[in-house]
Parts: sequence; structure tokens; C-alpha cells
Amino acid sequence: MRPLLIDLYQLTMAQSYFELGMRERAVFELFVRTLPRSRGFLVAAGLAQALEYLEGLQFGPADIEFLASLGLFSPEFLKCLGTFRFSGSVHAMPEGTPFFGQEPILRVTAPILEAQLVESRILNIVHFQTVIASKAARCSLAAGERQLVDFGLRRAHEADAGFFAARAAYVGGFHATATVEAGQRFGIPLSGTLAHSFIEAHQSEGEAFRNFATTYPGAATLLIDTYDTERGAERVAAVARELKKISGPRRIRAVRIDSGDLAGECRAVRRILDFQDCQEIQIVVSGGLDEYAIEDLVKNAVPVDAFGVGTALDVAADAPVLDMAYKLQEYAGEARRKRSPGKATWPGVKQVFRERGSRRQIVRDAVALADEAVPGEALLAEVMREGRTVAPAIPLAQIRAYCLEEVQALPALLHDLQQSTGAVPVRISDALRALAAQLDAEVR
Amino acid sequence: MRPLLIDLYQLTMAQSYFELGMRERAVFELFVRTLPRSRGFLVAAGLAQALEYLEGLQFGPADIEFLASLGLFSPEFLKCLGTFRFSGSVHAMPEGTPFFGQEPILRVTAPILEAQLVESRILNIVHFQTVIASKAARCSLAAGERQLVDFGLRRAHEADAGFFAARAAYVGGFHATATVEAGQRFGIPLSGTLAHSFIEAHQSEGEAFRNFATTYPGAATLLIDTYDTERGAERVAAVARELKKISGPRRIRAVRIDSGDLAGECRAVRRILDFQDCQEIQIVVSGGLDEYAIEDLVKNAVPVDAFGVGTALDVAADAPVLDMAYKLQEYAGEARRKRSPGKATWPGVKQVFRERGSRRQIVRDAVALADEAVPGEALLAEVMREGRTVAPAIPLAQIRAYCLEEVQALPALLHDLQQSTGAVPVRISDALRALAAQLDAEVR
Repeated sequence: MRPLLIDLYQLTMAQSYFELGMRERAVFELFVRTLPRSRGFLVAAGLAQALEYLEGLQFGPADIEFLASLGLFSPEFLKCLGTFRFSGSVHAMPEGTPFFGQEPILRVTAPILEAQLVESRILNIVHFQTVIASKAARCSLAAGERQLVDFGLRRAHEADAGFFAARAAYVGGFHATATVEAGQRFGIPLSGTLAHSFIEAHQSEGEAFRNFATTYPGAATLLIDTYDTERGAERVAAVARELKKISGPRRIRAVRIDSGDLAGECRAVRRILDFQDCQEIQIVVSGGLDEYAIEDLVKNAVPVDAFGVGTALDVAADAPVLDMAYKLQEYAGEARRKRSPGKATWPGVKQVFRERGSRRQIVRDAVALADEAVPGEALLAEVMREGRTVAPAIPLAQIRAYCLEEVQALPALLHDLQQSTGAVPVRISDALRALAAQLDAEVR
Repeated sequence: MRPLLIDLYQLTMAQSYFELGMRERAVFELFVRTLPRSRGFLVAAGLAQALEYLEGLQFGPADIEFLASLGLFSPEFLKCLGTFRFSGSVHAMPEGTPFFGQEPILRVTAPILEAQLVESRILNIVHFQTVIASKAARCSLAAGERQLVDFGLRRAHEADAGFFAARAAYVGGFHATATVEAGQRFGIPLSGTLAHSFIEAHQSEGEAFRNFATTYPGAATLLIDTYDTERGAERVAAVARELKKISGPRRIRAVRIDSGDLAGECRAVRRILDFQDCQEIQIVVSGGLDEYAIEDLVKNAVPVDAFGVGTALDVAADAPVLDMAYKLQEYAGEARRKRSPGKATWPGVKQVFRERGSRRQIVRDAVALADEAVPGEALLAEVMREGRTVAPAIPLAQIRAYCLEEVQALPALLHDLQQSTGAVPVRISDALRALAAQLDAEVR
């Protein structure tokens, strides 16, 4: 659970609350202030891991010993930490829900010491998967019916990012990942091809193709751009003919092109394969792809069957960061408001109400006080009570299907990757505005 | 060790090598093709973790069982994986070394199955810390003598990124981190302040300041921008005077400003604190800082004592990805070359030779064949032999000091954050060019 993966100030504040006897109930909400320019919507993800963290968080003897060595903490407080368990409740939007700026996607209600202590890691978990699921949903909009595979482990930001990117990409609509551990732990379909080094380690490209195709009959994707892509395609066709003679049809599944003018190469390769009676061999492309490149290939009807997306997905290089915050909204039953310039928050315990039109199309959202009567579905539901998860775990494939459905339910304007704002009006309720004005009028 | 944090194709290629009896020695090199536009140099980092990975890599029974369930692997190959240990050697630049495009920073020599198998994770480890150390070095150039603290855990890409960002930032010249686990595991100095929620949970800002300052006599950094920054500074001064009367000088260490016009607020706050006889209270700023914002504050002589850098550091938002690759350069004693458009590599086993001028100033580098006689220091040294680390572990503080020294030794032009290229000529040796031309002439 890595309990010390926490900002030092969470612990120093916790000790202050402890020593001051501040044990009242606090409500924190997690939300994104404003969306990156290139995002018309975001997709909530990482909730399952956030709940696991809250359920499992404990400080072991070695942690307490290290904290004691800092000379900042009293024995009484360290004793309290030694028996710490999160005892609060959590309300959240289901994973896979599209959402917008200023909408709380997760709410923690707990004694302030507990609710404060978990801030850094809850943000760290939900922020990352939301970044990736949002990027993946855009790739999925661009790819349409074509297959999307996550290739991003190598340039993801260290181990956990590679691992959870595979999960979040699947939530956002990807079909498979190359990251084996994500298959093991989450049951995500695995997919793999071949690296240039395999080709280069052979005396000839044709020999490399024959060797790999023989090892994986029917399942091999051969990489054809190591030396010359079109010549590579011809060699694949030759090997395919050879193998067909020996042992029947469909001996090679696909070819992969990883560089060059992808549109031109795909068309040329498709022609070569078709001409050589290899219509069944699919084309996979990769190499610096993002949603715009995918859209371009699809709109131009380039013959591509699957996209391998790496860096642009696993790092979300155009928007690797969201302006996500976890803020105190109520303490001891009183609404609270941060008023720092450019960072003011909407106070109080809130809910997001989503209004739908025909065929469940999303029409508008309202951010309102949780106990207001506002039209629409309430998106935040209780998922943890007294420190225990109360909602049944949702299978990942079901989360993915829900996400695909909900993204389809967005206004058509938001299916346009160039359109980044304004398609779904998010209204702040009058009662919420009134509460904010009232708090501003109070002197602190 | 997470052995299945690997791309599926590493395992399928490994099985092919196994079945084909391809057991010859391969040499792979890790390098960055071209630097991001905003980087004049990079800083190598993550080597210690890469070596730990290579030494510890093993596949457990559960891993083998999962792989068997995929229906892709033969019992013989799985048996071979079950006893896998990395038996090769590694040459690398010391962590903290500034480097440039096309320069190998790490070289793996091993039977091809082994050298191929570790590609994804070696890249995943070295890429991330190199991204962060490079960004940190830029912040350090901007900050000069002022303190730099890593605040980025919450928006780092999941757990490991937060954790290792703290390490890489320290290598690149940061002084401290807020991430407690990095203090525990790496001995990096820890630093923490106060969140807005602590202020808001109190009935008044003054009460919050008094309470926190009393809990941490002499060590408190008070956050003053929750409601009104200048009024916050006055309240800090009032609390400081109160506390001085009770128990002597220096009861509050610093104030932190996290929003607004930082230059203007710092000047106003410094005036207020000085006027109220609180010259000893330092000013910490944070909130969306990067190396450019830091440089701006420093060049304008704004009274700041320390910078807290979060998102811009831990995600390196302007250059979160490097074009880093791990490529086969030699197999069975023969040089190899990938020729894909835009991705061609320099073949063969290489070395980087660094020429220095007076006071060890870095003048030029040459990338050459490892056995060439070229002037300059050879930067890659053997650090692992037959799967065991042979170089003694270097204390992190020593790596940091070396990095600061080497960055200082770069040409002055590269100390200019706007200057991103060309200050250190990197020459490709004639012998290397000749070898590449020779390989291109061979038909494959």
C-alpha cells in the first residue's frame, strides 16, 4: 500500500489536527478546474484503485520508525498513526463516466485527519488513469471500428504508469495491450508483434519472417519496415505462399509498418499483398501515432486494420496533466471556500445532475448542492461506507462497454476531436452561487 | 521485480530465439535519437534501478502459469524462463552525466534472448528518470543558490513516478522533496508546508497560523494565500510577535505563496514582514512554477528563498517524452543497422569520448566505435559483469554533486534556458560512418 507515498505536510497537518483535538467530519471533493485546451470531455478512471488504497492504508512498524527519526512527530501521534484505518465514506461517479470542468467526480467524507491524509495518493491514482482514459477515448473516437492496441510501456513514466495505462486505455476503448502484467492482473487481451532487432539478428529479412511465422502459425504479425517496407511486404507474401503450400491457409496474421509515410506505405503494401493473393493478411500501423494521425488515416480510407499507440497514449503527451484538485468543501457541518486568485472553489457538499434527451443523449449537467432538488440523474453514488467498499466490483469489460456507450451519448459536436469546449453546458445551481457569495461576505 | 511488466513481443521473440537455437551474443545500446526542442542537454539517470532490475529479474511460478495459459508458449520454453537469470554485462555513463543526441548512455551485452527480454523495462526505468533529472537540472540552473523542493507527487503518473521523480529531481540539483517515501528509501531531505484546507478548517486564518506554528516551533511554513495574501502576511507577523514574546526568536520559519502575481505578492509580503521586524521569515513560492517562471523571478531579484515545483517537474510537462530507443547494434560479432526512414541507427559497439578544456570545461564529444583511438574521456564504463554489479553503489548525494559540477562544466551557452542546441558539437567518427555505409551496401 506504500503508506509513505504521501506529502510530508499531510502528516504534519494530521499531527496538528490530532494535537488540537480537531476531529470533526470533513468533506473533500476531487474535481478538475478547467479542461486542457485539447479536451472537450474527460473520462473518470482509477476509482477501483483509489478504494483499494483507502481500504488497505496502514502504517507498519518500519514506517513509524522512519517517521520517528524525523524528529517532527510526538510518540502519541505516532501511536495514533500506528493504528490508523480509514473509516470514512466515498461517493463517486462510476469509472468510465465522461465529465467536465468543476464537476466533482469523487467525494470523501471522514474525520478531517483521515480525509486530509489521503489527499496526495488519491489524486495521484485518479489523476493518472483519468488522463489516460480520456486520451484513449479520443483515440477510440478516431479509430471507429478498427482495433487499438496499447504499446506504451517503454515510455510510460515508470512501472506503475505502464501498468495502469493499460487498464485506463482499456476503459477508454482500447482492445488490447502489449503489457503482459495488465493481462495477468486485469484480464485485458494481450497483443504483440515483432521488433526490428529480431529481423536484424537474422542474415536476411525473409529468413526472419519464415522463422517467426513458423514459431507462431496463424498468429504472427511481421514487422516489414526494417530495411524497405515494400520489399518487406513482398517477402511476407513469398513466405506466406511457401507456408500455405506446406500447411494450409492463413499462416501469417498481419504485417506491421512502424515508420515512413504510413498512408502511402499502407496502400502500397495492401496492393502487394492482395496482388499476391494474401488478402487475409491484415495491416497494423504504429510509430508516433495519436488520435489526429489515426483520424487522418481513417478519414482517408487508408487500408489499416489495427493501430498500435505508444507514447502519445501512455504519457498523453499533449495533455499529460490535468488541473485536478482535492479540496475541503465542508468542515464540522459548515461549507468552506478557498478564495485564492484563479483557484476559488465552489463550496459545500455537491452533486452532479445529468439531464438526458432521447436515446439517453447527454444534454446538460448541473453542479448543485447535494441536497438540492435538481432535474437529472445524480452521478455521484456511495461506493464506500465506514471504510469498507459497499458497491460490488464492476468487471473491467463492463466499465469499458459503459464508457463507450456514454461517450457515444455525448453531443455529436464532442465527437469532433477538434472541438474542445462548450458542447455540454455545465450549470452552477443558484443555491450554490448563493452559498459562495454568502461565504465570501463572511470575514475570516 | 514485476517480471511480467514486459511487452508480449519480448517473450514471443525470446521463444523464437530459444526454438531456433539463436544463442549468440548481442549488443544493444540505449540512446536518445534527437533532443526535444526545449532541451539543450539531457542528464542520465535511473542506472541504479536498471541494474537492480537486471540483477533481480526472475519469473515465479504464478508468472509461468499465467504465460502457459496464453497458449503461445511451449513447455520447454517456459521451463527455460523459469530458471532465467540475466547473465550479461552492462556499460553505462555514470548517473548525473549530461549527454546529447545519438550518444549511447547504456550498453547491454548478453545472449540475444536475455538482451532482448529486458528492453521494455530498461527503457521504462531509464527514460523516466532521465526525463525528470533533465528537467530538474534546468530548474537548478534557473534557481541558482535558492532552494528547490519537489512537490509533484499528486500529479506524477501514478506511484512509481512520484517516488522516482523525487530521486531524479535530487540528482538534477533539487534540495528536498515532500514525498516521504523518497526520504525513507533514498535519504533525500524532506520538506513540507501547509495546505489551504488546514486554514479553511479553522474559524479564522490567524487561529490556523497560531495553531500550526505552535505545533512546529521554528519549523512551520505558513500558507498565506487562502483568502488575501497581504492580509495573510500581516497575520503571520502578528502571530510571530506573539510567539516571540512567549518563547524567544524565530518561531516561524517561512510563509508560502501559491497563487496570484507571485512577483508582486513576494515584494509586498517581504515589505510587510520586514516592516514588522520579521526579517528572518523566509518566502517560499509555488503554484505552476517551471524553470522559466523561476528564472523570471530570480532575474528580477524578487525576494524568494525557495521554490516548490510540482507538476512541471514530476511530469516534465513541456517534454514528458524523450525519443529514447534500445537498439541491436551487433549480433554474433557482426554490426547491425536499422534503416527505417527517420529511425536509422549508427551500427556497432560504440563509445562516447568527451574532450575537455581548461577547468574540465566540456568542449566536444565524439561517438565512435568502442575500440577506436579517439581523444577524450570514455564515458561508458563497465558496471555489470556476468549479471552481477561490479561498480560500487554511489551515494545519491555524490551523484547529485557530480551532476551539478558537470552541468556547470557545460559551455555557458547551454546555461541559457532558451538555448537548446548546437553548443556542444557531437561528432560521429569516420570509422563509424564508414561502417554504416558498408552495412547499407550489403543486401538483406
